[in-house]
Amino acid sequence: MASISTLFTKTPNPSPSLCLPRTSKSHFTPAFRLPIPLHSKKRTHQKLRVSSALIEPDGGKLVELFVEESLRDVKKREALRMPRIKLSRIDLEWVHVLSEGWASPLRGFMRESEFLQTLHFNSLRLDDGSFVNMSVPIVLAIDDADKHQIGDSTKVALVDSKDNTIAILSSIEIYKHHKEERIARTWGTTAPGLPYVDQAIAKSGNWLIGGDLEVVEPVKYNDGLDRFRLSPAELREEFTRRNADAVFAFQLRNPVHNGHALLMTDTRRRLLEMGYKNPVLLLHPLGGYTKADDVPLSWRMKQHEKVLEDGVLDPETTVVSIFPSPMHYAGPTEVQWHAKARINAGANFYIVGRDPAGMGHPVEKRDLYDADHGKKVAAYDQTQNKMAFFDPSRAQDFLFISGTKMRTLAKNRENPPDGFMCPGGWQVLVEYYDSLVPSNNGKVPETVPA
Amino acid sequence: MASISTLFTKTPNPSPSLCLPRTSKSHFTPAFRLPIPLHSKKRTHQKLRVSSALIEPDGGKLVELFVEESLRDVKKREALRMPRIKLSRIDLEWVHVLSEGWASPLRGFMRESEFLQTLHFNSLRLDDGSFVNMSVPIVLAIDDADKHQIGDSTKVALVDSKDNTIAILSSIEIYKHHKEERIARTWGTTAPGLPYVDQAIAKSGNWLIGGDLEVVEPVKYNDGLDRFRLSPAELREEFTRRNADAVFAFQLRNPVHNGHALLMTDTRRRLLEMGYKNPVLLLHPLGGYTKADDVPLSWRMKQHEKVLEDGVLDPETTVVSIFPSPMHYAGPTEVQWHAKARINAGANFYIVGRDPAGMGHPVEKRDLYDADHGKKVAAYDQTQNKMAFFDPSRAQDFLFISGTKMRTLAKNRENPPDGFMCPGGWQVLVEYYDSLVPSNNGKVPETVPA
Repeated sequence: MASISTLFTKTPNPSPSLCLPRTSKSHFTPAFRLPIPLHSKKRTHQKLRVSSALIEPDGGKLVELFVEESLRDVKKREALRMPRIKLSRIDLEWVHVLSEGWASPLRGFMRESEFLQTLHFNSLRLDDGSFVNMSVPIVLAIDDADKHQIGDSTKVALVDSKDNTIAILSSIEIYKHHKEERIARTWGTTAPGLPYVDQAIAKSGNWLIGGDLEVVEPVKYNDGLDRFRLSPAELREEFTRRNADAVFAFQLRNPVHNGHALLMTDTRRRLLEMGYKNPVLLLHPLGGYTKADDVPLSWRMKQHEKVLEDGVLDPETTVVSIFPSPMHYAGPTEVQWHAKARINAGANFYIVGRDPAGMGHPVEKRDLYDADHGKKVAAYDQTQNKMAFFDPSRAQDFLFISGTKMRTLAKNRENPPDGFMCPGGWQVLVEYYDSLVPSNNGKVPETVPA
Repeated sequence: MASISTLFTKTPNPSPSLCLPRTSKSHFTPAFRLPIPLHSKKRTHQKLRVSSALIEPDGGKLVELFVEESLRDVKKREALRMPRIKLSRIDLEWVHVLSEGWASPLRGFMRESEFLQTLHFNSLRLDDGSFVNMSVPIVLAIDDADKHQIGDSTKVALVDSKDNTIAILSSIEIYKHHKEERIARTWGTTAPGLPYVDQAIAKSGNWLIGGDLEVVEPVKYNDGLDRFRLSPAELREEFTRRNADAVFAFQLRNPVHNGHALLMTDTRRRLLEMGYKNPVLLLHPLGGYTKADDVPLSWRMKQHEKVLEDGVLDPETTVVSIFPSPMHYAGPTEVQWHAKARINAGANFYIVGRDPAGMGHPVEKRDLYDADHGKKVAAYDQTQNKMAFFDPSRAQDFLFISGTKMRTLAKNRENPPDGFMCPGGWQVLVEYYDSLVPSNNGKVPETVPA
C-alpha cells in the first residue's frame, strides 16, 4: 500500500501492486523511519500543472511568494541595509502560510484595506469585483520603536530569533492596531483568556505593518516533521498524480478517534455514490500554534500513525500532511479560514464537525460558540466556490467525545468507551500525558529523531 | 421655491415659478403649518414606476410588506387567534423599516441564516448567488415565557403597547440570542455603556424570532412628523417626478451646521461637473431611537427648517425626509446600513463624513472607531453596486466641530465659531437645551401641533 513517502516518488499514478506492502506495519512508518530523499521536498517553483479535476485556487491562481533561488543571496544582502523586524514564532508560521499560498490571492501581511475587509466582510474584494473568503486577519504587529526605526523606509527585512533574514516586506503600510476591535470582530467576544489573544495580540505592538512579501528563506522547523509539510502546490501535484476527481479535507488538531475515521470513510462512500470515481482524503492536522493543553503536534503525528495502522483509512486514497497555520480558536470565523486554505490546496469538499475551531468560553461556563454555527457559516460562504460541506452531526451523535473530554480521560489514564480509538493510538496519548509528570520538569521529551 | 410640501402635489416637475414663494419665510414652514392633504401620504401600493436613472433597489426589487388594505381586517381577526408578541418602541421602528423596504430584499425579522450572514459577512446571499449588503442585525428578541407561549405555532401576532395588532410574523424560526457575540461582532467591543445595547439588547430575551412579516397596521408616531416619513417607494416617485439623474444622500442625526451645508452644495457641484444634469439631494435625518443626549428629532427638524431658511440648500433640488431607522452607534458597521437603506430609496451617491455613526468609547478615553474606517468600509462594500462615496474630509478639516462639542456649546449657551451655523438655527438648539432645565421636569415640551 502507498504510504506518505510515495508522495515524492516519480512514479505517476502508482497502482496498488506497485506500492509498499502493508507489511511495512504502518502507513506512517516509512515517513518516520525510512530515509526520504530531501531534494524531493525542495521548492521547485515550476509552473503548477493544475488538473482540471481540482478546484481552482481562490482568485484563480495559486500565489507563491518565494524569491527565485538564484536571486536569494542578492536579496539577502539587500535586506541587510533595511530596517529589521524580529518575527515571533507565530509570525514565522504566518510567513510560512503566506509564502506557500494557503491564503491566495493574498500577497503578504495585510494592509489596512485588507484588514478592514477581513474584519467586516470575512472576504477580500478582487480587482475584477469578485470576492474570495478571508475571515482571519493575517497581520504583523510592530511596536513604537519598530515604527520609529522604519521611518520613511518603504521596505523592511523580517528576521527570525537568530537574526537570519527570512523575508522582505515591501511597499509597506503602517496603520493602527485596534486590538479590541480586532478581537471582538474575530472572536465575537473580548473576554480575557482567549489563547491566541494572550499569546499573539495582547502584548503585541500598537501598529500593524502590511506589504508585499518576498521570502528568501523558506520556513523550516527542523523538528523531524518538515517532510510532512506539503505546500498547496505539492498537494495539488500529488492529487493530480493520483488522478483524484474529488478531494475531501479533514482538519484536525486533536488525536484521531474512531468517530473521525468513520466520518472520513463515510464521506468517501457518499462521494462515490455521488458519482466520483476517485475521491482522495486530505488528512490535515494543524501544525502551527496550539494552546498549551492541546496535544503537541509530534505526539499527534505518532498517534495518527498508530491509528492508521488499523487500516481503517485506505492509504491508497489518503494523503497525510501538516497544515502550517497557527490556531485561533475562533469558531465559525476560523472554520472559514480552514476551508478556504484547503480550497487553495485543491480540496473541493470539507468535513465540518460539531463546534469546529471552538472551545469553552474563557470566563463563562458554556461553549464559546454555538456548536452548529461553524458549519452554517462555512457553508454560506463557500457556496459560490461550490465547495461542498458534509455535516457529520449524525455520526458524531453516537461517537461524540469532545477533545477536552478525550484529553482528560487520557491524562487520568482512564480508558475511553469501547470502540472509541484503537488501543495503540490511545496508548500514545497516555504516554504523552505520562511524559508531562513533574519528574520530566513538565517538558515534552524529544521523541522524534532529528 | 418648492418646499417639502410639494412632494405631495400632483403637479409633475413643478417649475420654480409654480412653487410656493420664498416669502412663506421657510422652505419648511408649509410642512409644519400648512394643512397637508392626509390622503396623499396614504400607502397606495401601486406598482412602483422606477426611473431608469435611479439605482436599482438591492436584490432588484423594492420589497414592501404591507397587507393589501382590503385584506387587513380579515388578517387582524386572524391575528387574534395567534400567540402575541409585544413590540417595544425600537421593535416598532424596525417593523416600520422592514415594512417599507429600507432593508430590501429582507422580508421580515431575520432567521438564523440571515443573522449569521449579517454578523459574519455584513451581507446576505440571494438565491441567484449574488450578495447584498446587510450589516446590522434586524432581529426580534423574545423571552422564555414568549417562547413557551408560542409552542408549536408557526405564526405570531406582533402587537403594540396598547395590544393593537401591527403585523403577523409567519413561518417563524426561534433561535438562541447570543448577545455577547452579537454585540462583539456588530460594535467591535463589548464594553458596557453602548446606548443601543443598554436600550435594546442587554435586558431583552434570550431568543430571537425570525419570519416573514406582513404589516396590517402601518406604523405611525402621531408626533406631527409622520408626513415627513416618506417610504423608499415614495422617495423614488419624487425623485422620478423631479427628473433626478443622480440622487445624493446625506444622513444626519445632529443639527445641520454650515460645514454640512457646504459639503452638500459642494457635492452637487461635483456631480454637475461629472456630467449629471439634475442631481437631487436627499437630506435624511434619522428619526428612530437615538441616545439620551442627542438632540430629539422634533427639535432637529425645527433646526433644519431654520437652517434651510438661509437658502444655502436649494429646495428645488433638495428633498427633506425622515429615515425611520433606530440608531446603533456602530460606526463602520452601521454606515453600511445607512448607505444600503438609501440605495433602496434611490440614492446612488452617499456622503460619508468623519467617524460616521461613531461615538466616544463608553469606557476608554478615545473614540470608539477609527475616524476613517467608516468611509473605507462603506466604499469597499458598495463598489459592486456602483454607489459612489464622497469623502468630505477636506471640507471637515476647516469646519469640523463634533456633534458632542456642538451640543456642549449650545447647552452652555455659548456661541459657536463665526460661520458655523446660521443664528436662527443655533437659537433652536439653545432653546432646546433651555427646555431641559429642571423647572420643565427634564421633559421636552410639546412644540409640534398635533
